[in-house]
Amino acid sequence: MRAVRMTAPGVLEQVEVPTPDAGPGEVLLRVGAVGTCHSDLHILDAPAGIFPTPITLGHEIAGTVDTVGPGVTGWSPGDRAAVYGIIGCGRCRACLRGLENQCRVVAVGGIGLSRDGGLADHVVVPASRLLHIGDLELEQAAPLTDAGLTPYHAVELARPNLRPGTSCVVIGIGGLGHMAVQILVATTAVRVIAVDTSVAALDLATRLGAHEVVQAGPETVEKIRAIVGPPPDGADVVLDFVGADPTLATARQVVATGGRVMLVGLAGGTLPVRPVAEEPPTLPMETSVEIPFWGTRAELQEVIALGRVRLLQADVQIFPLERAPEAYELLRRGEIQGRAVIVP
Amino acid sequence: MRAVRMTAPGVLEQVEVPTPDAGPGEVLLRVGAVGTCHSDLHILDAPAGIFPTPITLGHEIAGTVDTVGPGVTGWSPGDRAAVYGIIGCGRCRACLRGLENQCRVVAVGGIGLSRDGGLADHVVVPASRLLHIGDLELEQAAPLTDAGLTPYHAVELARPNLRPGTSCVVIGIGGLGHMAVQILVATTAVRVIAVDTSVAALDLATRLGAHEVVQAGPETVEKIRAIVGPPPDGADVVLDFVGADPTLATARQVVATGGRVMLVGLAGGTLPVRPVAEEPPTLPMETSVEIPFWGTRAELQEVIALGRVRLLQADVQIFPLERAPEAYELLRRGEIQGRAVIVP
Amino acid sequence: MRAVRMTAPGVLEQVEVPTPDAGPGEVLLRVGAVGTCHSDLHILDAPAGIFPTPITLGHEIAGTVDTVGPGVTGWSPGDRAAVYGIIGCGRCRACLRGLENQCRVVAVGGIGLSRDGGLADHVVVPASRLLHIGDLELEQAAPLTDAGLTPYHAVELARPNLRPGTSCVVIGIGGLGHMAVQILVATTAVRVIAVDTSVAALDLATRLGAHEVVQAGPETVEKIRAIVGPPPDGADVVLDFVGADPTLATARQVVATGGRVMLVGLAGGTLPVRPVAEEPPTLPMETSVEIPFWGTRAELQEVIALGRVRLLQADVQIFPLERAPEAYELLRRGEIQGRAVIVP
Amino acid sequence: MRAVRMTAPGVLEQVEVPTPDAGPGEVLLRVGAVGTCHSDLHILDAPAGIFPTPITLGHEIAGTVDTVGPGVTGWSPGDRAAVYGIIGCGRCRACLRGLENQCRVVAVGGIGLSRDGGLADHVVVPASRLLHIGDLELEQAAPLTDAGLTPYHAVELARPNLRPGTSCVVIGIGGLGHMAVQILVATTAVRVIAVDTSVAALDLATRLGAHEVVQAGPETVEKIRAIVGPPPDGADVVLDFVGADPTLATARQVVATGGRVMLVGLAGGTLPVRPVAEEPPTLPMETSVEIPFWGTRAELQEVIALGRVRLLQADVQIFPLERAPEAYELLRRGEIQGRAVIVP
Repeated sequence: MRAVRMTAPGVLEQVEVPTPDAGPGEVLLRVGAVGTCHSDLHILDAPAGIFPTPITLGHEIAGTVDTVGPGVTGWSPGDRAAVYGIIGCGRCRACLRGLENQCRVVAVGGIGLSRDGGLADHVVVPASRLLHIGDLELEQAAPLTDAGLTPYHAVELARPNLRPGTSCVVIGIGGLGHMAVQILVATTAVRVIAVDTSVAALDLATRLGAHEVVQAGPETVEKIRAIVGPPPDGADVVLDFVGADPTLATARQVVATGGRVMLVGLAGGTLPVRPVAEEPPTLPMETSVEIPFWGTRAELQEVIALGRVRLLQADVQIFPLERAPEAYELLRRGEIQGRAVIVP
Repeated sequence: MRAVRMTAPGVLEQVEVPTPDAGPGEVLLRVGAVGTCHSDLHILDAPAGIFPTPITLGHEIAGTVDTVGPGVTGWSPGDRAAVYGIIGCGRCRACLRGLENQCRVVAVGGIGLSRDGGLADHVVVPASRLLHIGDLELEQAAPLTDAGLTPYHAVELARPNLRPGTSCVVIGIGGLGHMAVQILVATTAVRVIAVDTSVAALDLATRLGAHEVVQAGPETVEKIRAIVGPPPDGADVVLDFVGADPTLATARQVVATGGRVMLVGLAGGTLPVRPVAEEPPTLPMETSVEIPFWGTRAELQEVIALGRVRLLQADVQIFPLERAPEAYELLRRGEIQGRAVIVP
Repeated sequence: MRAVRMTAPGVLEQVEVPTPDAGPGEVLLRVGAVGTCHSDLHILDAPAGIFPTPITLGHEIAGTVDTVGPGVTGWSPGDRAAVYGIIGCGRCRACLRGLENQCRVVAVGGIGLSRDGGLADHVVVPASRLLHIGDLELEQAAPLTDAGLTPYHAVELARPNLRPGTSCVVIGIGGLGHMAVQILVATTAVRVIAVDTSVAALDLATRLGAHEVVQAGPETVEKIRAIVGPPPDGADVVLDFVGADPTLATARQVVATGGRVMLVGLAGGTLPVRPVAEEPPTLPMETSVEIPFWGTRAELQEVIALGRVRLLQADVQIFPLERAPEAYELLRRGEIQGRAVIVP
Repeated sequence: MRAVRMTAPGVLEQVEVPTPDAGPGEVLLRVGAVGTCHSDLHILDAPAGIFPTPITLGHEIAGTVDTVGPGVTGWSPGDRAAVYGIIGCGRCRACLRGLENQCRVVAVGGIGLSRDGGLADHVVVPASRLLHIGDLELEQAAPLTDAGLTPYHAVELARPNLRPGTSCVVIGIGGLGHMAVQILVATTAVRVIAVDTSVAALDLATRLGAHEVVQAGPETVEKIRAIVGPPPDGADVVLDFVGADPTLATARQVVATGGRVMLVGLAGGTLPVRPVAEEPPTLPMETSVEIPFWGTRAELQEVIALGRVRLLQADVQIFPLERAPEAYELLRRGEIQGRAVIVP
């Protein structure tokens, strides 16, 4: 079968490999759609030794069950499914609670991360990683597993603060941020304030239900403050899907006392936490700074539920398998609108 | 009556002032005991204009009701009470939930902070700030209102992670830290790991029930890691009651994936949060960094409940009112063991 | 001034009384609107000795500040406000958390319950009972304080179970139920299943966003089961705003394992809880049965926030003060559509 | 190998059966200890058709790994383990959260319930059911899996109400109740009030740390009320490990407004919930009645952690396998002190 693999650090190429077999507890899936993710670029750019090579990339997967391995119950050939990408140890205190994204044993374990992923005609996954998707299109289901799940998890963590009458600032209306706006509108009654440098992105946010939009620039903080009020008041929650120094500076300057900054984007910025000293504090008291990672299987099930009732829809751009390397190049150059999805 | 006041920025002196009257909704309290707090030193050291002058200091107060003002119900002369020091606006979303320490209107409002405090023969406080203390000694009740409440609140915030089989690192076994150890032992079954530079402090931690002690030094991180295991495992919660750069570096290097760092101490250190980049991350994923501030009235009621059944006892050093300035000097020089309590 | 009072058990009449004065911490409000509530009928029907007489009824109040008493801050003549009706002791563990509806000292304390209410030209209330309403009409604000707050509180208690992909059954689409549907639609992504005997009520539910409607009858349980699936699955939450034996029987027969039955209606039914025995169990395992009462001040603030952005609107029928007794008669006969609101 | 089986409804006998093999994802365990449980008597007494026959009983199991089946990772021969008895579907919204005790697909699925249990020399279990026990004795580990886990889960559900200064009534200091007292003492600072008809049971409760004991009799309610105060105050939580009509009547008459009644015991009693009517209410407002079932794998891990540090110890009476039927007879007659544990 065809597979798009990282054959050596930084080298992505389409190759021919034998179709794998489903082992005990596993399922062979015919791949229907695979989302491309910025973290794939991190994998490609990582120094040798961190990720195994060769490895088939692709951790946002939806497809159809082809064959089931020994001991698998509850899944049959023809079943349509989305794939939860993380594989935790299954035995630590985090995994037992269903928080495999906090596994205390396996730091980075997952399909397309530590074993072959979905950029291929077929992929083998543990049956426990599959979730039913009903009649949801595979092209929609695939990006929900990460671009949908990651902002959903961040919103879940912040949910106790997302109450009627509060404000949530969403910084970065890209692949994840445009999902976040929809999730907030569907599951809360907060005032959503979208922030981006791009007018097109802000227009998208408005169409998706954002109540206020702020074009990022030298006066971002002042514009947001005009909406959320002066300290010690402010935004109850800030979701930063960029994570660069300027966006983090905005986040900590607009968050309310008792609020939460969710640092999701991986642009390499640093948020300095210093409560009180001779110099001014960097954040109001009683705030928290959190660094969410992906999400849980239970949350993915809920994300799929939102997708099935059309309260959450990914803006997708379809590519055939052979154009996967090109899609990653476009992603790297910031030229993908929404999410690039590969259909083998 | 006598009062120990900051008469000008940085100037603390005992003066004679008229005994105040209780206004509507207020109570005149005969002061029984007042704890001295590091934050009083911050007030004394602050530039002009931040705190009003003249102002009687002292925000850790216990006493006996002398007279009640118009409209006060539920309190009578002779009632013994502890004073909750914070005065929020009473109308914002935080205050309505009883989270006056997160008030969205009043940044720093409180007895001994924005109005006269307890370092005097009498003090007027809103009746709503009083809590019954039963037969608890006033010298014990006073330090519970801050030195007891602040660590209790930090533990409360982290409580979802403080489960049987988990580990909590307590950095700094001083006025607040020695309370934290007792609170953890009384209300959880976590393994308590006490960290301090002082052997005497660690001995105190052991007597109070800490399960492991680590003397701080060049190998603090390695010693704690030997107890809590290697990444991505680690300490479920770290309570830092120092808050200097070295203690914060320890905190972020020993916390587990999914764990919490509670930054309570105000020694002026900075904890840089950077999830992932070319450089190594500063914290594991799914962690949070929180900066708790004091606590709530409901929590103070629970702290007093712990005090009344002797599960929480402050280590106190008693001074008469006229020696209050001296007590603050000793505190500044780090020569107070436990908590200095002034008895007018 | 005019006042509609219960002058003796069961006797409601309009009388002339002196306009009261605001005492310390109190405010004199010019009444703008007062909602009529089934519990007023309970008060009228109660035996002598349970409620004081004479007493002005009316506990769903909105109005304008006329004068403020001594010691009141934050309110000025002309301010528009809704009134939180409960008056707890303010000192018990429930009140300190803002849960005055669970006060451990005062069983039934409130405006229009234990002291004069709003069916008059003016009413005196503690300033702490007032909430700002912005530009919300007084006729809308009044019913939000009970008919809006009570279902909001019930939803809040059940919120951990109200996740995307789950189902919530709302029984009784009357004064409270039609609010519940709106609250669920505004703040969750659950599937709302409305149940009522009246086709008009079900039509209203559909207009307000309910996803499924079931006309109550001999096959209510079967019809709901056709939507939510067979045991051990079922409805994640059931909100019963009727509370009669037949509705409670429906509730316990359709709730899922691990689900919640919220018993809000006071029609006098009994729900027998028997987990397992020789006879069949009455409820699935891991379920809870809860009896919510009114709500909290913080929740009322959020209800008002929903009202201000038009996500929650009461269906009101306006009566002048002199027709208040007639409005109660219509309410008793079930002839009020939505909420009858008295405008003095 | 030997196995104690229900060969027909109500018939328990020791028979010889072939030693089973571990299938994919399964483990063959050498049984070290099996606790006997009242629910085994329910299984024996159930009408034909509810439970499969023949079936080896025993769902409280600890043992040593003998062989591992295909696809099993993380377990090796010689590993010592406790067995989590429930087997959920693994895919429903409850199972994905680790709440297999609330599975929405499998009503009663488990080892010794729907497939062969541990009253034998060997038992085959899914590897996912195993938890490491360190150096804990197998005789202690076995009863922790149900007699320890069930009260732990009930305490977990009620934990938000179990705060310093509150009271928890424990009714029935038997196999589960004596565990509950220890769990409360180890993980909370609540006042524990133990209730039983037996003086010996109350003495045991006192030794385990209960603060108050009440001998059940005609004045149980009055005696408890003398400790917890009059309505609307009362016990914050009541754990009923008997579940008969008289104990449930006690529970609902002593619980506080806003409190929780946890109905764990299966003696067949009924608790009628009726909030308000012409007749008096059966419970205070804002209370909940919950019917917990067993517990979760994550909770069992925490129960084992308590056992390993000796904060939780079962009072056990050891029997060899051939005396298992006799042990059940003693259990039925109420002549077992603590927990009868079978050691094959």
